[in-house]
Amino acid sequence: MAGGLFAGIDIGGTKISVVIASDDGRVLGRSRRKSKPERGFDGVMARVVETVDEACADAGVARATLTAAGVGAPSPILPDGTAVSAVNMGWTNVPLGQALRERLGMPTFAENDCNVGTYGEYAFAKPRRRGTLVGLFMGTGLGGGIVLNGTILRGDNALAGEVGHMTVVPDGRPCVCGKRGCLEAYSSKTGLAYEFKEAIVLQRKPSVLPSMLDEGGLDNVKSSILRRAWEEKDEVTRVALRRAARYLGIGAGNLITLLAPTTVVLGGGVMDALGEQLLPLIRESASEHAFPSASFRSASIELAALGDDAVALGAVAYADHCLS
Amino acid sequence: MAGGLFAGIDIGGTKISVVIASDDGRVLGRSRRKSKPERGFDGVMARVVETVDEACADAGVARATLTAAGVGAPSPILPDGTAVSAVNMGWTNVPLGQALRERLGMPTFAENDCNVGTYGEYAFAKPRRRGTLVGLFMGTGLGGGIVLNGTILRGDNALAGEVGHMTVVPDGRPCVCGKRGCLEAYSSKTGLAYEFKEAIVLQRKPSVLPSMLDEGGLDNVKSSILRRAWEEKDEVTRVALRRAARYLGIGAGNLITLLAPTTVVLGGGVMDALGEQLLPLIRESASEHAFPSASFRSASIELAALGDDAVALGAVAYADHCLS
Repeated sequence: MAGGLFAGIDIGGTKISVVIASDDGRVLGRSRRKSKPERGFDGVMARVVETVDEACADAGVARATLTAAGVGAPSPILPDGTAVSAVNMGWTNVPLGQALRERLGMPTFAENDCNVGTYGEYAFAKPRRRGTLVGLFMGTGLGGGIVLNGTILRGDNALAGEVGHMTVVPDGRPCVCGKRGCLEAYSSKTGLAYEFKEAIVLQRKPSVLPSMLDEGGLDNVKSSILRRAWEEKDEVTRVALRRAARYLGIGAGNLITLLAPTTVVLGGGVMDALGEQLLPLIRESASEHAFPSASFRSASIELAALGDDAVALGAVAYADHCLS
Repeated sequence: MAGGLFAGIDIGGTKISVVIASDDGRVLGRSRRKSKPERGFDGVMARVVETVDEACADAGVARATLTAAGVGAPSPILPDGTAVSAVNMGWTNVPLGQALRERLGMPTFAENDCNVGTYGEYAFAKPRRRGTLVGLFMGTGLGGGIVLNGTILRGDNALAGEVGHMTVVPDGRPCVCGKRGCLEAYSSKTGLAYEFKEAIVLQRKPSVLPSMLDEGGLDNVKSSILRRAWEEKDEVTRVALRRAARYLGIGAGNLITLLAPTTVVLGGGVMDALGEQLLPLIRESASEHAFPSASFRSASIELAALGDDAVALGAVAYADHCLS
């Protein structure tokens, strides 16, 4: 470990979250701002710097005393820090790592958000865990990361780990990526929106959901609202979430069959809100779909321990790793 | 490379094939026998030793002058050489590596047949290839192997790479493993048998296949017969093989999406016989199902170069690697 304090930066389509943390994951300060991607790449970069400075103030440290920064963003990231394609941010091939290195004046390491989220679980949640760790993050989309003996698996073009776009239903539902039958089309808020519209709008089934919605409508129901509707035993919500859990279990089962990991961690907004409710369903489906049974028995499927801080703290662990 | 000559042993449900080869893959001698698994583990071991001695005689060398032996077998193999479960051989937890080490009197390294088949492509077919290589072998079943920066990916319990049992159709066709919708249930001779029975027996479609069959019947049509029926433009055969190719492309696309490999090689009996005919269909399907498109463009899908010798030569490369 490199020692000292790090900024961990989580850039998402809605918000920027920053933690100031030590190399063992202790959080000394934090800050959060809306990301406002409509202001363009430079606008978002300026807001990141402001958020880092606010987090430094919260921690009572000067930015210049930080050792390095780690950044997680919703895009494949090349080794030189280029963000290849962040649909939610409107970015194509932007120099994310370089831009923040220059603006923050410190070593800065950018990676895909789900990759660093998985890396954070590896480094902080169970620091003695070795071998293969798979992370699945169910939020607006379905992202994944693979850490193999302490290294993020990037594949030969830095684009590996796109678990959400593995085909689980040939000729299945349309996915936002343009393909059909992707895991993300079933196990994500996008998949839930598809179910909600079918049940509530087309089939006119009764549901408490419409009365709870804010400006996101059925297209992007907040995780907290999903939880409320689940707790009110809303059948439309429960059927949709059970199906999402079943498909996430198919995805987890397939990754166990292929990679024989020790642990699969489940994170992301939907899991943060409804993890205890969905975990048994996901485990049951993974057990049904994994082969051979010895692989399933030797893999544990758990909720991510870092919760909402997964990406920001993972970015701290990743920056520390890059310097070591 | 360790230097000297190696025995490469391919143990299958039907036959044992042995090559005597140098560490750069040059074959000096070979032999082949039926494996006769009904004679039990010791019976098969005795036949392996006889086949090795015949191959040595063919090469004009004494067994005692060999550096080491590599063994590929249709089972997950633990690091200590235990074959966990070889359904075709009737083996459960047999000490394969140790038994042959004692009987052959030389260092002997056992591995899963598709793992060494992929390793052989890595080591001999394109020896300067680096990064990630995925092998898919379509024969009686559908096996796979992953070589990552020169090392076979085994996962945390030596059971990784079971590509054929990833679920591609939820609630789909029954698979021999007891699950449903496995890739192997679509892209293998077992999958073809399912199609043939449905078309010829249930739907009574005309086909040249029944007139060509030997004792295997529709359950295990020889690859050479598949090829003859394809060349005679038999529609039942072509429809079934096109579907098998489409699903193999889904599997290849999913592995490209997840692992971002440089190369996917396609081998096994069906591909050895019909590779030129099926390759364009597999590529088209993989292109349709892989994400993001940059990953597909940077991966090439090719026929395995070592053909029928893939496992035996791969076992040579693997033994050499273990000694180095």
